[in-house]
Amino acid sequence: MSTPIRVALDAMGGDHGCAVAVEGAARLSTEDRPVRVLLVGDDRQIHEELAKHRYDPTWIQVVAAEGGAMAMDEDPRRVLEQRPECSINVAARLVKDGDADALVSAGQTGATILAASRHLQRLPGVRRAALASVYPTESRHGPRGDPFALMLDVGATLHATAEDLVSFAVMGSAYAHIISGTISPKVALLSNGSEPNKGTDEIKAAHQTLLNVSGLNFHGNVEGLDIPRGTVDVIVCGGFLGNVVLKMLEGVSEVVSDIARDAYARKFLYRLGLTMLSQGLRQLKTMTDWKQYGGAPLLGLDSVVIKAHGRSNPRAIRNALKVASKAVHGDLAGNIERGMLAVTEANR
Amino acid sequence: MSTPIRVALDAMGGDHGCAVAVEGAARLSTEDRPVRVLLVGDDRQIHEELAKHRYDPTWIQVVAAEGGAMAMDEDPRRVLEQRPECSINVAARLVKDGDADALVSAGQTGATILAASRHLQRLPGVRRAALASVYPTESRHGPRGDPFALMLDVGATLHATAEDLVSFAVMGSAYAHIISGTISPKVALLSNGSEPNKGTDEIKAAHQTLLNVSGLNFHGNVEGLDIPRGTVDVIVCGGFLGNVVLKMLEGVSEVVSDIARDAYARKFLYRLGLTMLSQGLRQLKTMTDWKQYGGAPLLGLDSVVIKAHGRSNPRAIRNALKVASKAVHGDLAGNIERGMLAVTEANR
Repeated sequence: MSTPIRVALDAMGGDHGCAVAVEGAARLSTEDRPVRVLLVGDDRQIHEELAKHRYDPTWIQVVAAEGGAMAMDEDPRRVLEQRPECSINVAARLVKDGDADALVSAGQTGATILAASRHLQRLPGVRRAALASVYPTESRHGPRGDPFALMLDVGATLHATAEDLVSFAVMGSAYAHIISGTISPKVALLSNGSEPNKGTDEIKAAHQTLLNVSGLNFHGNVEGLDIPRGTVDVIVCGGFLGNVVLKMLEGVSEVVSDIARDAYARKFLYRLGLTMLSQGLRQLKTMTDWKQYGGAPLLGLDSVVIKAHGRSNPRAIRNALKVASKAVHGDLAGNIERGMLAVTEANR
Repeated sequence: MSTPIRVALDAMGGDHGCAVAVEGAARLSTEDRPVRVLLVGDDRQIHEELAKHRYDPTWIQVVAAEGGAMAMDEDPRRVLEQRPECSINVAARLVKDGDADALVSAGQTGATILAASRHLQRLPGVRRAALASVYPTESRHGPRGDPFALMLDVGATLHATAEDLVSFAVMGSAYAHIISGTISPKVALLSNGSEPNKGTDEIKAAHQTLLNVSGLNFHGNVEGLDIPRGTVDVIVCGGFLGNVVLKMLEGVSEVVSDIARDAYARKFLYRLGLTMLSQGLRQLKTMTDWKQYGGAPLLGLDSVVIKAHGRSNPRAIRNALKVASKAVHGDLAGNIERGMLAVTEANR
C-alpha cells in the first residue's frame, strides 16, 4: 500500500462550524480506505466534538489554529492580515509546508481562494486558478454514468482571456478524467452558437488554440441548450458567466421543487400522483442537491484544493475529503502540468 | 374609435412559410378588435392561402414583394443587397414610409434586425437596439399575474457598454409597462451578486446611473437565482449572457419534459402518477412553450418591431400581431424616448 494521503481540513469553516467537519472526518476514519485527516482549528472544540463520535484515531490528527474561524461575512483580506493563525490560513500553510497533500474547506469561497493562492504555487503556464463545479445534466457521463458534468470557471475570476480559457479547458479535462474516470472527457467552450466564429474575441481565439492541443478531446463551442442536456463532460467559460449559470441552475431546481410541493399541498389526490412520480422528481432534486456533491475544486495550483459547500452536512464533508484524496492519488497537478505543456506545443 | 393600427407582416418568414402567417392574420381579422394587417410577400401564394380561410377583407391587404423569402440559413447582408425586394425588406420599408405602424416577422432574427435597423431610426439617446424576450418565472407579474418576466438583450449585440445597459433598462421598463400593464415594472441588472459593487465595470457604472434615473423602478443587481424565481419584472444584461441564459432555459424545459416522458414510458403505474401531477408539469411546460409567446420585441427604434419565433403557429402569429398593435397603441417609442430623457437628466 502506498503512503496514505493527508488532507488538511479547515474544521472551523462552513455554516455549521466544527461539529459537521469533525463528524465528516470521524465517519471517514472508520471506512475501508480512510484518508489521514488533519483537523485544523480550535483544538478544545474539536476534541469535544470528536468525543461525540466513533472514530479511528490512527487517521485523525488535530492541529491547533489559534486565530479562530473566519465568519461568512468577514473580509478575507483583512482577516488574513489581522489573524494569520485563523484555521483556513493554517490549513493552507500545512499544505505549502508539505505536512498535508490537499486542502478542504467549507468556509468562505473568497477566503479559501485567497489563502490557497497565497500559499500554493500556480502550475507552469497557468495564469489564474479557476473554481470548477459539477452540475446536473440529462445525459450520463463517464464509466459510472454520473448525471453530472463539470463547469469552470464558476467565479474565481470575473474576466477570462483566451489564454485563461485554454488553461481552464486543460484543467477541467484533467479533473474530470481523474474524478469521474472518463478516459477522454469531451470539453467545449460555452458560446452564443456552436459555430467556431461565434462568441467574444476571447472565445474565438481560445477555440483556435484548443483545436491544436494534442491529448485534449475538444468538442468546439456549445450553447445554453447544451448545459442541461449535458452534451459534453466539461464546459469552459469565464467566471462571471459561470457564476450566473450555476446560480440559475440552483434557482431552477428550487422552482421545480416548489411547484411539486405546491401541487402536493393543494389537493389530497395529488399525493398519490406525487408518490408515483416521485422517482422522476427525485431524479431532478437529487441532481441538484449540493449535499451530494464532492465539493468544487480550485484548479491550477500545485496542490489539490477543494471548496465544500457552506451548508455541507457530514456526508458532504466526507465526500469532499474522499474527492481530495482521489485527486491527489490521480496526480491532478501532474496531469494539468502535462496538459499545459501540450498548450505550449500548440502555440508554437 | 381611433385610427386602426396597421402592421406589416413578413408573410414569407418562419419555418412554415406563408401558410402560417396568412392563417394567423386571417384569424385576427375576424376578431372583435382587429388590426389592419399588410401581408407582404408572394401575392399569388398569399391569395391561395387566404382562400383557404375565413377572413374579413376589410382588415387584410396584400402587398407584393417580388424578391422572395429569405431562407433561414442565408446570409442576410448578402440577400438584402442582392434581393432588396425580399419580403422582410419590403415590410420594413412600409414602416419607414409610414404605410404601416409596426413590423412583425417570424423569419431569421438577423435579417429582421438588419432590415429594421436599416430602415428605422434609433430613438434619441439609444446607441443600440436590443432584442427582448419574455421567459417563465415562478412568481407572477403585473395586474394579470403573468408567469413571465422580460429579459434583454438576448442577442442583438454581443457586448454592452454601461450606456447600453442603461438604455436597455429604460426600454425594457417601457415595454413591460405597456404589454403586461405593470404600473412601475421592477428593473434589475444581472450580475454575479446583488451588491452594487458586484459585476463587470460596465455593470457597476450602469448601476450608479440607474440609481439616479427618475421614473424608473430600479431594483439594483440580481443574480442567477433570481432568473427562475422572477424576483423582478425586467432583467437587463449584455446580449452574449442573455443568449446563453435564454437558451439554457429552453434546454431546462426540454429536460423536464423528457424526464416526465421517460417516467411515463417506463412503467404503466406511472401513468396514474403523471395524470395526477400533470397540472404541475403542464405549468412547467406551458411556462416555457414558445407557441404562447407574443414574440420578441426589438427595442430602441422609432417604430415597433416584433420578431416572432421561427416555429410560430398561426396562434403565435396572431399573438405577435396583437402585441405589435398594443405596443403601437401604448406609444412604446414615445415612452422609451421620455425614459431616455430621464437618463440624460441623471447624467447631468
